[in-house]
Amino acid sequence: MDKTITFLEKHHDRYEQELIEILRIPSISSDPGSLDAMRDMAKLLKKEMHSIGMDTARIMETGGHPVVYSEWLNAPGKPTILIYGHYDVQPVDPVALWDSPPFEPVIKDGRIFARGSADDKGQIFIHLKAIEAWLATQGRLPVNLKLIFEGEEEVGSAHLEDFIKANKSLLAADYVVISDTPMFREGYPGITYGLRGLAYLQVNLKGTSTDLHSGSFGGLVKNPINALVEILAQMKDEDGRILIPGFYDHVLPITEIEHDKLSKLPFHPEDFARNIGAPALFGEAGYDDLERLWARPTFDINGIWGGFQGEGAKTVIPAEAHAKVSMRLVTDQDPEDIAHKFTSYVQSLTPVSMEVDIQAMHGGFGYLTELDNPGLQAGVRALKRAFGKDVDFLREGGSIPIVKVFADIIQAPVLLMGYGLPDQNAHAPNENFSLYNFHKGIESIVYFLEEIGGLE
Amino acid sequence: MDKTITFLEKHHDRYEQELIEILRIPSISSDPGSLDAMRDMAKLLKKEMHSIGMDTARIMETGGHPVVYSEWLNAPGKPTILIYGHYDVQPVDPVALWDSPPFEPVIKDGRIFARGSADDKGQIFIHLKAIEAWLATQGRLPVNLKLIFEGEEEVGSAHLEDFIKANKSLLAADYVVISDTPMFREGYPGITYGLRGLAYLQVNLKGTSTDLHSGSFGGLVKNPINALVEILAQMKDEDGRILIPGFYDHVLPITEIEHDKLSKLPFHPEDFARNIGAPALFGEAGYDDLERLWARPTFDINGIWGGFQGEGAKTVIPAEAHAKVSMRLVTDQDPEDIAHKFTSYVQSLTPVSMEVDIQAMHGGFGYLTELDNPGLQAGVRALKRAFGKDVDFLREGGSIPIVKVFADIIQAPVLLMGYGLPDQNAHAPNENFSLYNFHKGIESIVYFLEEIGGLE
Repeated sequence: MDKTITFLEKHHDRYEQELIEILRIPSISSDPGSLDAMRDMAKLLKKEMHSIGMDTARIMETGGHPVVYSEWLNAPGKPTILIYGHYDVQPVDPVALWDSPPFEPVIKDGRIFARGSADDKGQIFIHLKAIEAWLATQGRLPVNLKLIFEGEEEVGSAHLEDFIKANKSLLAADYVVISDTPMFREGYPGITYGLRGLAYLQVNLKGTSTDLHSGSFGGLVKNPINALVEILAQMKDEDGRILIPGFYDHVLPITEIEHDKLSKLPFHPEDFARNIGAPALFGEAGYDDLERLWARPTFDINGIWGGFQGEGAKTVIPAEAHAKVSMRLVTDQDPEDIAHKFTSYVQSLTPVSMEVDIQAMHGGFGYLTELDNPGLQAGVRALKRAFGKDVDFLREGGSIPIVKVFADIIQAPVLLMGYGLPDQNAHAPNENFSLYNFHKGIESIVYFLEEIGGLE
Repeated sequence: MDKTITFLEKHHDRYEQELIEILRIPSISSDPGSLDAMRDMAKLLKKEMHSIGMDTARIMETGGHPVVYSEWLNAPGKPTILIYGHYDVQPVDPVALWDSPPFEPVIKDGRIFARGSADDKGQIFIHLKAIEAWLATQGRLPVNLKLIFEGEEEVGSAHLEDFIKANKSLLAADYVVISDTPMFREGYPGITYGLRGLAYLQVNLKGTSTDLHSGSFGGLVKNPINALVEILAQMKDEDGRILIPGFYDHVLPITEIEHDKLSKLPFHPEDFARNIGAPALFGEAGYDDLERLWARPTFDINGIWGGFQGEGAKTVIPAEAHAKVSMRLVTDQDPEDIAHKFTSYVQSLTPVSMEVDIQAMHGGFGYLTELDNPGLQAGVRALKRAFGKDVDFLREGGSIPIVKVFADIIQAPVLLMGYGLPDQNAHAPNENFSLYNFHKGIESIVYFLEEIGGLE
């Protein structure tokens, strides 16, 4: 691989110049005024794919912003890798809080500051440059490769699932690779092997047909807010354990190996608490902090409302009370099963003096890549070769819905090889991307293609 | 008393005509456009007081709408009665829901429909006509009498407490009589001898300095809404008993006599529930319905809010959560003491991962007239003589703040002899007043003056 790595070193400055160019394009998918910029961005990617040597580069229409696709399938007998990324970016408001204009990239302290630098243009560019280096220096790739970059990730990937379903054969692959996650700490490569799922519901309690005066009726009717807090208070015990019957039935405990790896990650609860302005942290008894955050399910009330919320005092017994609740799930919890169990439990707790209506709003399975998956192991070896450090094994407390969509439709494991940093300010002013990670990232993907190409 | 009662019968129709005249005046105290009407109303009352034979009738300025005052103090050695009422009325919106214009009184089915008919012009007019009949037929009153009618009751009596304090000697009396409450049922006179008090507070819980993503933080931080529902769920047990330590320390249980009287009142829980659209009623275990409503303290959450309340789903752990709570109190609970006990209890329940701030917003003592109070007994005898029925002994679940103000400053028991009906629609469209109650009311006050004048 020496000549390929030498190629990277030689073109170091050009990569940064090219990155700056694609970061200049204000491809804000949620902004109706950015339609031209979105098209310009798609065209630029198509041109770039073509110029680095990918085949059949094309812009494919969806119901919304288009997908850019290309492939290189000249390695018969070798695995096929589908690389997914997105070329759209978040809005830039509040612009006044940016130190430099969001679409005029500035390099400072080893980082490039621009909207989209980390999320996700900088990360898709890593793959393009690694492919370019392989083809330029070796005349071939060690694997079959498919690239799919979408333009609607920041607006919920509304058309992607249908697109993948409709193009299932085109996108068929042995592995899916996504670079859109952060590392755990600067200087240390990380691979994300687990995501939590989600069950989101709304609870509506109705006590009476109209609001009542608390003097004229208080003492004789059940107040729906009182009832709601009494019901929701029974979702967890004092140790933070969730009390919904059967809730933990399908929770996979973390293995000893996982626990060992998690416990090696530096985590400072005091710093974590200080950063979010919390007097102290709180979590389920009997688990380490990162396990609580990544590998244990949760129950959170995301919103609650009822009665009088204005200034001053109003002595009302409201007719209704409402809450939005969500549970972060872990494999193998089934969001539908959990929604059903939650609903039954709430119904069993609802007093006879009250009507309850529960709406399931949203759900998704968690996701886990086996630690001994050969593709994941290839990624780990590649990252270690490039960064010269042991790889952090990470999970993510949130959900990345598209991961499950790929896993289910393509029927292939998804590898989350992310090059962002925890303070990259994705979705916030002064988004930035580490140029060290950018260059080491390209190197790691060069190695990754070699490693995964060597698999049986 | 025969000639006085005959006088009433003879002037029956004139009373109704005069009532219609005062109901024509749109004395809406909250309406800046009704300043002239408020003055007209005050002048009319002054003129009326003068014409029926009261002395020193005058309009007395306050910082807002004026008070109309007069007195008759020519019964040395007899008790002095202060009669309070109000000549201002509620706004009339929504006007479209009135069957006839609110200030064009209409008589239908034995009731007079107009804004202010029950609340409170019709009821103050009862007193004026009873006094007129006494002076016209007997040339004297059997007691000393002071009348004070204010113009700001519907806007919170903002200037009345200061006025009473500043005119304490002028208003000195042995009894205060207020006719501004409803009877329990049509055809049966009632006297209200108890009111509940109030302690109203706001609870603010703060978990972190900003809202957090429930995926990235859920499991490691205490959610302030979860904490709030867990705290508020500990205010009552399953039997509806309030768990704030010391809460019941000063609650006077109702006497056997009271219990006996309350249990004679017809109360149909199914009808009550149906009227308010509740699937069932709920109250503290071990008490009768009316006892729960009138003689037991309550804990109600009047408002709650935090996090995401819009359409759809947002996976947020909010920084803060809030609730407004109130406790209806009974004698001898002290609102400050209760606010203090609630605050201490909430603080003791607040997790260390959370900051709590509690604001006491409002408070008032309950009020109770002893059942064997001679003035109250005089009222009971008078009501029975006029209506020919046993008198209902009533309490009121709400508060009438001005009652405590009179009781504390004038240092005299307050008698609540009300002539409204439960379906009088005070504060609502189609306010109405029973003409049977109006005429029987005048008769009962004629008797009341005689009865109370006969007291030692």
